[in-house]
Amino acid sequence: VKTRSEYRKVTPEIISSLVEIVGEKDVLTGDKCFNYSKDEEIVAETHVPEVVVRPKDTASVARILKLADEGCIPVVPRGGGTGLSGGVVPVHGGIVISLEKMNKILEVDDDNFVATVQPGVTLAELYEAVESRGLYYPLFPGETNATLGGNVSTNAGGMRAIKYGVTRNFVLGLEVVLPGGDIIRTGGKYVKCSTGYELTQLLAGSEGTLAIITEIMLRLVPLPGKREVLCIPFPNLSDAINAVPAILKDGIIPVGIEWMEKSLIDLVKRFTGKEVPLRDYEAFLMIILEAGSEEEFLSISGRIEETCRKRGATDIFIPGTERAKRNLFEVREQFHTMLTHCNVIGTADIVVPRSCIVQLLEKSREKAADYDVIILAFGHAGDGNLHLYLVNEEGNISQEQTKELFKKIYELGVSLGGTISGEHGLGLSKKGYFPLAADKEKIDLLRRVKLAFDPNGIMNPGKIFDLDGD
Amino acid sequence: VKTRSEYRKVTPEIISSLVEIVGEKDVLTGDKCFNYSKDEEIVAETHVPEVVVRPKDTASVARILKLADEGCIPVVPRGGGTGLSGGVVPVHGGIVISLEKMNKILEVDDDNFVATVQPGVTLAELYEAVESRGLYYPLFPGETNATLGGNVSTNAGGMRAIKYGVTRNFVLGLEVVLPGGDIIRTGGKYVKCSTGYELTQLLAGSEGTLAIITEIMLRLVPLPGKREVLCIPFPNLSDAINAVPAILKDGIIPVGIEWMEKSLIDLVKRFTGKEVPLRDYEAFLMIILEAGSEEEFLSISGRIEETCRKRGATDIFIPGTERAKRNLFEVREQFHTMLTHCNVIGTADIVVPRSCIVQLLEKSREKAADYDVIILAFGHAGDGNLHLYLVNEEGNISQEQTKELFKKIYELGVSLGGTISGEHGLGLSKKGYFPLAADKEKIDLLRRVKLAFDPNGIMNPGKIFDLDGD
Repeated sequence: VKTRSEYRKVTPEIISSLVEIVGEKDVLTGDKCFNYSKDEEIVAETHVPEVVVRPKDTASVARILKLADEGCIPVVPRGGGTGLSGGVVPVHGGIVISLEKMNKILEVDDDNFVATVQPGVTLAELYEAVESRGLYYPLFPGETNATLGGNVSTNAGGMRAIKYGVTRNFVLGLEVVLPGGDIIRTGGKYVKCSTGYELTQLLAGSEGTLAIITEIMLRLVPLPGKREVLCIPFPNLSDAINAVPAILKDGIIPVGIEWMEKSLIDLVKRFTGKEVPLRDYEAFLMIILEAGSEEEFLSISGRIEETCRKRGATDIFIPGTERAKRNLFEVREQFHTMLTHCNVIGTADIVVPRSCIVQLLEKSREKAADYDVIILAFGHAGDGNLHLYLVNEEGNISQEQTKELFKKIYELGVSLGGTISGEHGLGLSKKGYFPLAADKEKIDLLRRVKLAFDPNGIMNPGKIFDLDGD
Repeated sequence: VKTRSEYRKVTPEIISSLVEIVGEKDVLTGDKCFNYSKDEEIVAETHVPEVVVRPKDTASVARILKLADEGCIPVVPRGGGTGLSGGVVPVHGGIVISLEKMNKILEVDDDNFVATVQPGVTLAELYEAVESRGLYYPLFPGETNATLGGNVSTNAGGMRAIKYGVTRNFVLGLEVVLPGGDIIRTGGKYVKCSTGYELTQLLAGSEGTLAIITEIMLRLVPLPGKREVLCIPFPNLSDAINAVPAILKDGIIPVGIEWMEKSLIDLVKRFTGKEVPLRDYEAFLMIILEAGSEEEFLSISGRIEETCRKRGATDIFIPGTERAKRNLFEVREQFHTMLTHCNVIGTADIVVPRSCIVQLLEKSREKAADYDVIILAFGHAGDGNLHLYLVNEEGNISQEQTKELFKKIYELGVSLGGTISGEHGLGLSKKGYFPLAADKEKIDLLRRVKLAFDPNGIMNPGKIFDLDGD
């Protein structure tokens, strides 16, 4: 296993070989590499790669990986660069393989409800291609410029997990290239499979540390009926969150249930001037529903209203026009952007059993108060995934203290039966906290699995865990 | 890596140690081991284990595995023994660890919709426990005496995959013991997780070759509404199967769509005397639906009828009473038992993209005819999983020819974009065909993954693939 000092540098010979494989204009060096040094994380560590290469086909990826593996040069696969954990930061330098030119939708098979795409296809492109065929890819991790390769690598989640699950639930098969250059195919156009180990799901969520994804088969579903959204204000967050199990036990399966608090709504108002309905209440649930007909929608929303009113809801707001509906979604989607205006010292993407959301939030805020830190938060009430933004307006917290506070919050999440990242991945910025969620025996096992794919440790080194760590 | 000759025998000292771990009455030797020599496969290879041990807790499993690993003795975990691929046959002797006494339902958490069970809990026990709490475990692989540990190990599928998927889609987390005795926990009470490699899904479907499952967290859903079944006759199988994509494209998501042919219906009639409705037609679709209300059911069944009549359906039969409905399900469930009365030379559990079912079946029958073999078949039209029973009434086919014919049929399935086993697993009896579906590079990768978990190769050796094969 290579440690940092043993990785080799990219030599002029390597550059020549890369040019031979992909052509001169797809080998970027010098200043042109700056755009490949980070992702969209707010507080980010950046590293400029030695070279960026943009292959157009699987065979080229295989040749590049063979070259890198033989030369012991780190390789970092990169999609849309929209990640939030520094997963694409080339922390040991080396080669960034950008999949931006492998962006073809290879097939939309409407008999078997499967789309086959290259990894550089964006979510926006996929939505358009399948919806024009009367089919639907239901996952919505939020950023439609994200690529499918990145979505699969981080197992992206989003707002529709109650009904549809997460990215891995839609990945039927993959073509990947191993570090030595071998091309492996997994899965196929079927849901049922008991033929050997489930490599598809092992690769999904592996953050580019095992292999490079060069083709993805995605499960599609029929276009849903009417999509509606309900906004339900509660006197406090606790009542709002506690209504969720009651809604679900009533047999209703919404697409998603988001929670939001007044503090964030006020922030949107402050920075955008946008009027948000019901913004005088302390907390909301935003419930996204799909229904086959107006009648079905009215029946479901009536049941939800009854359940929520019994648990303290003071009103129910159903936007009457498409514009009002869009407005509500936009408010939700702007939270991340709005928060970049604050003095954010770091973010967390914890997941806990959904019954523990309030407990996690209240206790985290208590701990944060000791450090002059406030926590702005929003998240997915239906699936227990919270997005915490730690803000220190005074700017008086040290890096050491920041780490200490995050450690306390993650420990809290784990003690409640949760884990560190629900949908962003550990990447570079969260890996230091991984031992809080996984004991030594488990991380050692992951290291052995990693080496089964990547014996020289060249694949996206320094992410998730260190190979030579303890 | 150990080859067969290097595995050691169970010594009297090992027996004494096992007695010390689990107590005398849960260490079985001699004749008492006969019941642990096979599963429910029709044409089965049997091997009697040297010793059977029945631990009651995880700590005991860990001690047994440590002992076996140090002694280099093969270990075969066993659940209900209802498998169909010889996955629990102790082909190299050694220790069978029967999980039959680890049969507690540890928790049904109705806030988070999660059941936590030990591996020896049967499906029947799970159904009862969760339904009494108003929750539902929707998978129905067919045999309710199967244990959850076995279901997870083979990634059991069943008749409800269109709406619900397969076992792996319901496994949220596991506790497993590795060969050295380390206890590892994966996942938790959440759907979203991007924290390290997805070990839960790698272990699910690994047929006991990586670790022993000692605890399982299963996702539950709300109890569904009305369950109804439609039986729709078609003039031929091709028309029946071709109606399936049209039904699904209409936005309807049935629980399952089964197809069946006259030849099998006649067999049920012949062996049970049971009257089956509409048995004069060549082929049927049996469509299982869940609906929130009678109105919704009538609306959906009306749309299905219209779609099917356009594609040649001559009638639609909706059983009017619970008894008639039950009768229909029973006919379907008896196929496997009925077929044991025929001279079955082997079975296949192929999955193909659902648009290829007819093609696979017709071409397989052509190939079988050359060998005086007829193929009786039924299966899951919605998900492309077929159950083929090869019958040679004359008894004039050799073992070599049988293998040759199976090879041709599997090659056909793979060439259509399918694979060898949709839900039974490869176990002992299908592993010889695995190289038809996976190339050498892929199987080599699986071997390395196996060794990351089980460096001495003691876990259920000789299943899925051989460690020392080529």
